Amino acid sequence: MTAPLRIAIAGLGTVGGSTAHILKARAAELGERAGRPLALVMVSARDRRKPRAADLSDVPWTDDPLALARGDADVVVELIGGEDGIARRLAETALAAGKHVVTANKALLANHGAHLAQLAEKHGAVLRFEAAVAGGIPIVRSLREGLIAFGVEAVRGILNGTCNYILTQMEATGRSFAEVLAEAQNMGYAEADPSLDIEGGDTAHKLAILSSLAFGTEPSLAGMPVQGISHITPEDIGFAREFGCRIKLLGVARRAGEGVDQRVHPAMVRLGTPLADVEGAFNAVVADAGEAGPYFFEGRGAGAAPTASAVVADLVDIARGGRGPAFGRPAILLKPANAAPAAARLCAYYLRFDVLDVPGVLAEIARHLADWDVSIESMIQRGRSPGEPVAIVMITHECPEAKLARALKTIAASDKVLSAPCMIPMESG
Amino acid sequence: MTAPLRIAIAGLGTVGGSTAHILKARAAELGERAGRPLALVMVSARDRRKPRAADLSDVPWTDDPLALARGDADVVVELIGGEDGIARRLAETALAAGKHVVTANKALLANHGAHLAQLAEKHGAVLRFEAAVAGGIPIVRSLREGLIAFGVEAVRGILNGTCNYILTQMEATGRSFAEVLAEAQNMGYAEADPSLDIEGGDTAHKLAILSSLAFGTEPSLAGMPVQGISHITPEDIGFAREFGCRIKLLGVARRAGEGVDQRVHPAMVRLGTPLADVEGAFNAVVADAGEAGPYFFEGRGAGAAPTASAVVADLVDIARGGRGPAFGRPAILLKPANAAPAAARLCAYYLRFDVLDVPGVLAEIARHLADWDVSIESMIQRGRSPGEPVAIVMITHECPEAKLARALKTIAASDKVLSAPCMIPMESG
Repeated sequence: MTAPLRIAIAGLGTVGGSTAHILKARAAELGERAGRPLALVMVSARDRRKPRAADLSDVPWTDDPLALARGDADVVVELIGGEDGIARRLAETALAAGKHVVTANKALLANHGAHLAQLAEKHGAVLRFEAAVAGGIPIVRSLREGLIAFGVEAVRGILNGTCNYILTQMEATGRSFAEVLAEAQNMGYAEADPSLDIEGGDTAHKLAILSSLAFGTEPSLAGMPVQGISHITPEDIGFAREFGCRIKLLGVARRAGEGVDQRVHPAMVRLGTPLADVEGAFNAVVADAGEAGPYFFEGRGAGAAPTASAVVADLVDIARGGRGPAFGRPAILLKPANAAPAAARLCAYYLRFDVLDVPGVLAEIARHLADWDVSIESMIQRGRSPGEPVAIVMITHECPEAKLARALKTIAASDKVLSAPCMIPMESG
Repeated sequence: MTAPLRIAIAGLGTVGGSTAHILKARAAELGERAGRPLALVMVSARDRRKPRAADLSDVPWTDDPLALARGDADVVVELIGGEDGIARRLAETALAAGKHVVTANKALLANHGAHLAQLAEKHGAVLRFEAAVAGGIPIVRSLREGLIAFGVEAVRGILNGTCNYILTQMEATGRSFAEVLAEAQNMGYAEADPSLDIEGGDTAHKLAILSSLAFGTEPSLAGMPVQGISHITPEDIGFAREFGCRIKLLGVARRAGEGVDQRVHPAMVRLGTPLADVEGAFNAVVADAGEAGPYFFEGRGAGAAPTASAVVADLVDIARGGRGPAFGRPAILLKPANAAPAAARLCAYYLRFDVLDVPGVLAEIARHLADWDVSIESMIQRGRSPGEPVAIVMITHECPEAKLARALKTIAASDKVLSAPCMIPMESG
């Protein structure tokens, strides 16, 4: 019999516990697929007494995660989280000791991915992270190995289940962002501190990883505009519907000249396109793969089972002898992810102006937009209530972001405009 | 520099030509990803003078495909097609010589996949076939390596672009199957002899492969009911819409007790589910992966670029050292694909009866259904024209297929019923 792959897991939260459970419960099947047994040889977590998905009483325990990197495991599974601190030290120590590393840690990879990939190659180790993006959807594998013949021109996705759940619920119930977030927190769908989700940071981490896999650049957050969903109102969602759209928090990356245009923001997506139909906590990714594309992937993006499923797939791959560089090319060949200048980007926009319903207000807004060459494709103005606040909403034709920003600045200065205009880019779904 | 992977291609139709073109045009990028150059060392096709996507004047040519298996290539790419004959001999000869084989040949794999996988393992060679199912969608890789942690319970898909194009066009234009098929043939979207597509055989081949990857069984067509789309009428498509459904040709495979229930047939799929929205020549697959699922994959299922893209992904994988058994487990462990007894399957059905509009006809049909415990969920009867032919359509509750068949047999014998009843199963989308 071939020697087992010796696995150590650091971090036994829901994902770590579920990973340990799968390794035990499905050992025979996984061993068949891997061509050798997968053996859990050591675990580490903060609290030994906490109940977990798997009975680990027969697995050696250590309180010190770094001990896993010094032990006799072949692979260290890092499920501690956090972009620096112990997670980073563990990954670095394990790779430097020639141990393979499997991680679900998107923050770590988005910030230090190129460095870790170099370390892995230098020491003949493998770094894998299917679980870091879109849970169980095999999108990392697909971009790294599947969609490579023509190159990928653009990748865009719904990468945060919490935000998609909130937006879906806001649409279904008409309730405000704050109400739906509070409910999601009560139900355990959103973290007590939800800022990494709702402000777009988590999506940004995942996008940086997808972008690297697609374009052969170092994962990087540098120059990536990131906007979350807390400013989206039920009104915006209703107007979106009237324009035949849904609002989704997207991560979008595309090649632009010598650089890569990466950004995270709520976007208007036309109904009937794949991303518009993604409901609840699901994740989805569209990859435009030249003549061969587009491809669409959808599935559960978070939670114990999907995430652990991705961790286990990476472990079986390593057991089977899967090698090859972390981001699909030798780390030394990854290019800096030069941010493409935002000014160069052409895009259509949804605009909402909260104004006083007085004569001339629409004319004033239209004139300022025209002054900056922003032309209007369609408009909704309803609920006339002279002298009262009212919303004017419109979709523009494609225009440079820089010009629109100048126009909006002038408009916001008007005494008839009651608050900062809301601007949501249109995006392909 | 690492030694190149030496590649020979047999069959230079649109896919072979496009594969050769990609290998040349994107040599640098692919070499980076593979960690070594990919070198096209020999090609073979029937007519040397035919114009192709790539200039192959500098590549050694042979008229005898079997010569590729005797030459010095590391990998033979089989793009000749056909379940037996030269394609099979080439694959067998190449594998027996220890050469890796990449193929897009679903008929070959559905009929002889287990044998070829054994041969590959015996001689230390790799057999890869991403291009055989759903074109460029990385579904073979995803089932073999990605969705393995929980096991896959069911897989269903739209696997034939020609059929999906025809059904989509029939719905969009209201035209008949025959008219749309003729148009598709004129436009090159359907073969001159379309029987393998429209009668479901091509879908069956692909389903047998997916089923093997998902369930660890030998690929097999044995006991698989296969029905095509030529009997679908614009009327059925219209009624489907009224019931909130679309008609799609599906391949469906699911674990059922000790066996596997595999079948190919047109199915009623509820609007709003992923498969219902798949348009035109696109392919799509849903995989129910236990607690981690469902997953949905969509993309171009045929054509030169998507198919060649899948061939190239397999070549890069082999160049990078990707090994592992063809169907995800050692061939010796693949179990026979015992067909689950159809009688055991519970399913709801769409039924259309073409009847004479005379008093008592509906009562008679309803009574025969009731006699066999088939109960009706909803019904449409319209266009009263006493004494004339009229359609009665209904959706049943779930019932055993065997009982429904008995009821339909009795109904068909009635002198008020003008033709064999049309029966279309409902299926999850």
